[in-house]
Amino acid sequence: MNNAVYAQSGGVTSVINASAYGVMSELKKVSPDSNIYAAQNGILGLLAGKLYDIGRTEKPLELLLESPAGMFGSCRFKLPEIDNTSFYDGLFKILDKNSIKYFFYNGGNDSADTCLKVALAAKKIGYNLCAIAIPKTIDNDLVVTDNCPGFGSVAKYVATSVKEAALDLKSMCKTSTNIFVLEVMGRHAGWIAASAELANVADLTHVHKILLPEILFDEENFLHGVERDLSKYGFCVVVASEGLKDQTGTFYSQSIIEDSFGHKQLGGVAPKIAELISKNLKIKYHWSVSDYLQRSARHLVSKIDLEQAIEVGKVAAKYAIAGRSGVMPVIKRLSNVPYLWEVREGNLLEIANKEKIVPNKYISECGFRIRKAGTDYLQPLIQGESFPKFRDGLPIYEQLDLHLV
Amino acid sequence: MNNAVYAQSGGVTSVINASAYGVMSELKKVSPDSNIYAAQNGILGLLAGKLYDIGRTEKPLELLLESPAGMFGSCRFKLPEIDNTSFYDGLFKILDKNSIKYFFYNGGNDSADTCLKVALAAKKIGYNLCAIAIPKTIDNDLVVTDNCPGFGSVAKYVATSVKEAALDLKSMCKTSTNIFVLEVMGRHAGWIAASAELANVADLTHVHKILLPEILFDEENFLHGVERDLSKYGFCVVVASEGLKDQTGTFYSQSIIEDSFGHKQLGGVAPKIAELISKNLKIKYHWSVSDYLQRSARHLVSKIDLEQAIEVGKVAAKYAIAGRSGVMPVIKRLSNVPYLWEVREGNLLEIANKEKIVPNKYISECGFRIRKAGTDYLQPLIQGESFPKFRDGLPIYEQLDLHLV
Repeated sequence: MNNAVYAQSGGVTSVINASAYGVMSELKKVSPDSNIYAAQNGILGLLAGKLYDIGRTEKPLELLLESPAGMFGSCRFKLPEIDNTSFYDGLFKILDKNSIKYFFYNGGNDSADTCLKVALAAKKIGYNLCAIAIPKTIDNDLVVTDNCPGFGSVAKYVATSVKEAALDLKSMCKTSTNIFVLEVMGRHAGWIAASAELANVADLTHVHKILLPEILFDEENFLHGVERDLSKYGFCVVVASEGLKDQTGTFYSQSIIEDSFGHKQLGGVAPKIAELISKNLKIKYHWSVSDYLQRSARHLVSKIDLEQAIEVGKVAAKYAIAGRSGVMPVIKRLSNVPYLWEVREGNLLEIANKEKIVPNKYISECGFRIRKAGTDYLQPLIQGESFPKFRDGLPIYEQLDLHLV
Repeated sequence: MNNAVYAQSGGVTSVINASAYGVMSELKKVSPDSNIYAAQNGILGLLAGKLYDIGRTEKPLELLLESPAGMFGSCRFKLPEIDNTSFYDGLFKILDKNSIKYFFYNGGNDSADTCLKVALAAKKIGYNLCAIAIPKTIDNDLVVTDNCPGFGSVAKYVATSVKEAALDLKSMCKTSTNIFVLEVMGRHAGWIAASAELANVADLTHVHKILLPEILFDEENFLHGVERDLSKYGFCVVVASEGLKDQTGTFYSQSIIEDSFGHKQLGGVAPKIAELISKNLKIKYHWSVSDYLQRSARHLVSKIDLEQAIEVGKVAAKYAIAGRSGVMPVIKRLSNVPYLWEVREGNLLEIANKEKIVPNKYISECGFRIRKAGTDYLQPLIQGESFPKFRDGLPIYEQLDLHLV
């Protein structure tokens, strides 16, 4: 009775598979007689008994280090409260049938809630389960941990992309386009938008306005600022968070759709901001919504992010073997320069369903830029490159051969 | 009387500066006593006498090889007909004042028109000028040349990005999102959208529908195809060209703005397609508009594209020194596998103001995919990587020190 199941949950990232690699490679080392399974599409696959037997996979697990997105499929699914006996009886019947003692759930806030419920239900029902959550979210909004695997790579992608696009805009601003608006993800937290500040260097401001969900959007104040940027630089680059809210606290986004967690699907902030500027200042604009591109860009991951994704996976395996449950390996920063960090144990009771937003101390007085304290925090997370292997001009991203039990 | 001026025109690319490097490094070699100038913001800077003296630039010209966008600034400006004597008298007065014999204009169709007019006006007025156009356009729509520097890198970026995003979508499609729509540039030509076909590999279809401007969009036919994709794969990735037209030949785009050439600025096809699908098939979607990101992505250029951008610059310098005028170095493909090419002389009379669209023989019968003949053409153009140097987690993109005459 010492088999393990690993599952991926919520929005995927360019390095979530590296955490899967961390878990699986460590388990093979420290618990070689455990069968390792991966649930198809997160907890839903587990509930349906759809488990991939990793022992039957013939390709090297190292492929997980180079492929973005969720190799085993993910899901968005909220577990019922733990007093729903029939539901959890069903779950533990499947775990028991597969002799599973170790349960790994790789995700963000909602997935931490899932893992916590599984841990508590196991305790209640008397099933000997070690349920470990593994942090993953591009939004960087988990509490307790200093940062979340998946975020550093998006930060690197956004800062790189906006630096490139700003040079493009600067080339064109004399006779054509003066405004570029890039919309980025991040939901209620402005971490991804904030990371655009890293593109600014001493001799050239690439990003002039950062619109954070943490700051209620004041159209008039913003337009005045854009006018000043235009007269000073000749062009203005805006990075807008999808979760931007207006003065009433309502999403500024054009389209709002709810997902199964009741979260609103956001999108369409960039064209709305661009039109606002164009209407008021009568200038030509371009806008971009990077959407999935930012979170799947394995070709431009942060090396430190990749390393941390692997490490939290490995430590999760160690915690499980040590008999821990209801916990998550979290990242503790020891110093900024040099960037030093270690993995510690976090309690899911303190993590599940909570959100960490960008603190005021990181935001400039005008509300549109990030202070040095903020860039000091962000800077280490985008360090280093780890390009994938290319064939015929494209990253290979070879997928594992997966076999259902 | 043997000075040279180089200028950049139209939408910039991730490798246009490499052509500037080609011109300037070759001129230094073959005509060491020529002063080399670069016009600020294309022909407009030249008309205003705003010339950068490259001889006073202290940083190495090799920086041009690593920085995207237009180092000297670009413009969109249509020259008057050559019978506008006062205009051309003004132009040649400035050229004469700076002892300019060699004129290099780096751009697409419109810029070829500019260069041709300058060449013809010089001949008419009796000014001894060698006016050479250097091909550059991400749209790949210049005639005579087999392909255009700048395109291969966008093709590589789009195929890579859509491959990554497709893996993301595949991870999420069980319980969340089933549709991803990526909008790409290309104006009236579908070359960029077509390049998404390169992401498809034998064992995994990453791109299911490609919407080309060459094929009038049939909503009903498209929706039926998407339904079939969803039932076969569980998800559907759509790559849509900004220049997509409806059955009446009208742009399908939501927003249409005209630029100074009378060209329409396109954008907003992706959200429109996504909503069309959602409204009819009742499923969750994501969409992305990559806009400037695709054409400035120096971090992911095609090595062959970079090499060709340099080479057409070098050959342009040779043509000028050889006394040619009203011509453009064009790329002639000698073979697909191995990919062999050479640079030949093209006549601007045959190139200016013409457009090359994706031929029917490259488009599948259904109109939504690219045939092998098309991918055979596209494949060589995305070959090889040439990553920029990174510092502190970001590409450096150091700019030249530029000094006005």
